[in-house]
Amino acid sequence: MSIRPIEEEAWELLEKSIIYYRGSPVGTIAARDPDIAALNYDQCFVRDFVSSALIFLVKGRADVVRNFLQITLKLQPKTVQLDCSKPSRGLMPASFKVELFNGQEYIKADFGDHAIGRVAPADACLWWIILLRAYVVATQDLDLAHRDDFQEGIRLILTLCLVTRFDMYPMVLVPDGASMIDRRMGLYGHPLDIQSLFYAALRASAELLIPNQENQQMIDAIHCRLVPLLKQIRENYWLDSDRLNVIYRFQVEEYGEEALNQFNIFSDSIPFYRLAKWVPEAGGYLAGNLGPSQMDCRFFAIGNLMAIISSLTNEEQSHKILNLIELRWGDLIGHMPMKLCYPALEDADWRIVTGCDPKNRPWSYHNGGSWPVLLWMLTAAARKMSRAELAHHAIAVAERRLLLDHWPEYYDGPDARLIGKESRRYQTWTVAGYLLAKELIANPDHLKLVNFEDEVI
Amino acid sequence: MSIRPIEEEAWELLEKSIIYYRGSPVGTIAARDPDIAALNYDQCFVRDFVSSALIFLVKGRADVVRNFLQITLKLQPKTVQLDCSKPSRGLMPASFKVELFNGQEYIKADFGDHAIGRVAPADACLWWIILLRAYVVATQDLDLAHRDDFQEGIRLILTLCLVTRFDMYPMVLVPDGASMIDRRMGLYGHPLDIQSLFYAALRASAELLIPNQENQQMIDAIHCRLVPLLKQIRENYWLDSDRLNVIYRFQVEEYGEEALNQFNIFSDSIPFYRLAKWVPEAGGYLAGNLGPSQMDCRFFAIGNLMAIISSLTNEEQSHKILNLIELRWGDLIGHMPMKLCYPALEDADWRIVTGCDPKNRPWSYHNGGSWPVLLWMLTAAARKMSRAELAHHAIAVAERRLLLDHWPEYYDGPDARLIGKESRRYQTWTVAGYLLAKELIANPDHLKLVNFEDEVI
Repeated sequence: MSIRPIEEEAWELLEKSIIYYRGSPVGTIAARDPDIAALNYDQCFVRDFVSSALIFLVKGRADVVRNFLQITLKLQPKTVQLDCSKPSRGLMPASFKVELFNGQEYIKADFGDHAIGRVAPADACLWWIILLRAYVVATQDLDLAHRDDFQEGIRLILTLCLVTRFDMYPMVLVPDGASMIDRRMGLYGHPLDIQSLFYAALRASAELLIPNQENQQMIDAIHCRLVPLLKQIRENYWLDSDRLNVIYRFQVEEYGEEALNQFNIFSDSIPFYRLAKWVPEAGGYLAGNLGPSQMDCRFFAIGNLMAIISSLTNEEQSHKILNLIELRWGDLIGHMPMKLCYPALEDADWRIVTGCDPKNRPWSYHNGGSWPVLLWMLTAAARKMSRAELAHHAIAVAERRLLLDHWPEYYDGPDARLIGKESRRYQTWTVAGYLLAKELIANPDHLKLVNFEDEVI
Repeated sequence: MSIRPIEEEAWELLEKSIIYYRGSPVGTIAARDPDIAALNYDQCFVRDFVSSALIFLVKGRADVVRNFLQITLKLQPKTVQLDCSKPSRGLMPASFKVELFNGQEYIKADFGDHAIGRVAPADACLWWIILLRAYVVATQDLDLAHRDDFQEGIRLILTLCLVTRFDMYPMVLVPDGASMIDRRMGLYGHPLDIQSLFYAALRASAELLIPNQENQQMIDAIHCRLVPLLKQIRENYWLDSDRLNVIYRFQVEEYGEEALNQFNIFSDSIPFYRLAKWVPEAGGYLAGNLGPSQMDCRFFAIGNLMAIISSLTNEEQSHKILNLIELRWGDLIGHMPMKLCYPALEDADWRIVTGCDPKNRPWSYHNGGSWPVLLWMLTAAARKMSRAELAHHAIAVAERRLLLDHWPEYYDGPDARLIGKESRRYQTWTVAGYLLAKELIANPDHLKLVNFEDEVI
């Protein structure tokens, strides 16, 4: 089969994006747009690299992934850090770059301390575990994951997420802007995007940790958390017609352990009439965030798609999410798969929730913009639920534009018809996401890199 | 000096509010309103008890405080809790009550797991340390604080606050509703009220921890945190004319360690015209919250008053806060000292930030309501800055109403002219707060119970 021009260029761009450290490939840079100042786009972001890494694993370039995992593991702080100017024990950096000093190459990590707004990369450590497990699945090289330093790295990440906290929810508590949406967008507390990654990371850790004395407490902790987390997400984050009916008639101010409206959600805060019109009878999805008197009813793609992939949602729920995408295609896919979040925050919501962020103006960037990298997650989710036609359709939509538009980072507008206002071109994860989607369609066996079967309850 | 009727009734009410456990006094109940169902108002709340405790210490009833400290210390989880349905190691309960079972009395604690909205009591453990130090100052009974179990209790609280976190700010990260404002009000992340208590608790711990090998790491950690926290609050939370001018002209999207606008605050999100009119030239205050693209410009009383008391603000700033209260008397004091938060969230802000909370409607309860308990903090702050006339004036305002209105929990309305819509009467901390303010005015020496001198920088 001859390779088409779009794929040919994609492979070439991916190859050129590889970062070398002392001669070895260790990651990929975020973007190689020749027309815009690099800022931090010349770095290797942990979350961005995941798409490249998965395609490398598919293509037998596991060496790059192995090097990346080892390099980042070395960057992870291993001792208790009581100095707040140093990153916490267990944290993984948001990004790193290779710097020259006295003719020698060094790795410089950013744990959010250099980033715009000083945001924390809470997702990086979760992606790192998920990627390590994908590497093991692809290569069968369990020895790497079983090495003492890797076992310790996993334990430290889990300790950070599981042990010390103020609240008593099964979800992990994060500050605002701690994931791919790294600007203020109402994603503080218990945002779905982080919870889905957290669940996948717990599932991956359960596979990777050697059942020995050193790990036993952590293994117990994982199993103690999986079910309450699953129940919380499947029950209290879930939104469909039936659930909307329940929430609409919630009692409030319930005191005590028996409260049904555990989070004291006030019905008036939920846009029922919009949702009743928008959510099809056959559809449903997980809400974007949940906390005291807070239920964020926006649809977030990463949280919902990763929930399907990791079996955080049950089979019926997974189908309902895909039904929603299919039946609300114009809203969620439009001219480029797919919306990172829908709908956009507008007017007072935009002013109050984003703090008047002009980059996140309505229907732009994170706030209702469309991100081609999500194509691989959509494809994996659709493949898993045996609905490849949905993925085929989405890939076809993407192919009409990506090459022509030079692989932009994101698209703007309610129907994704505009190239993102501040979008970089030649964005590596746009390229990698497309290639990965193609591979997942060509060979569903690759799904095993990220898939978890439903086996918990 | 003959005791006046108002004080006589207050003492009587305080005495009647004492909770006994197996014959010993161990705390005070939240309210004794005969006309409203108790719900959880029959419990002893840690944060509520602080006011009673301080007046007990002033009056030589240190036994109640000692019993309270011992009881609550026993409730604090001491082992690593990996089960999310159990409270974290180091956490102090929001409240406890005495229950009868088979004719025997037992203590039942609530760590937020029974509370409306399931909110976490992050402030309780900070108040506990502050109160322990007040007990030691009052009684000179350093032996209690030096007991192994108390030293361990302090270390566990500090570990919870200092060690594990995602972000790299000196502030402590908390979920929404984690303090006296225990409903959704935009106080997630790094709210001032919590940071001021955190700072005071760090200062108290530095005094209470024995400098031995077991404690050394924690003592180092305290000293490592105090200065960055102080700098962050004094520099980046501070709002006055000069600072408004700086923020008004902030550059945005600054990348790197040298960024001046560290949190990427967008000028449009700050209500400059309202603030420029409201903040007097001679006044200033600490903003209510700070995070990525977030600067909450509301005035919060606990955060600002406790900052003066603990010398978290410098002398000039402390005076400017008191100037603001004096020059904006009608807004912040009105007919009852004083506003918990000013101004109220209205319209879209109320809808979005509180999630349409009817109890926190504009100018009611936490959202622009007035709380008599704050009288003691105002008196302490004014006394400390040698501005007793301000406290005298506020106490005189309170005395016009408290007895007549039967000691309500809170008042409503922009000028505090209405008794709170769902306010309990005979609220213990209203009574205790008034008595404490009177004692602080009568004898400034009592200030030492809560005061910290400026000695850090």
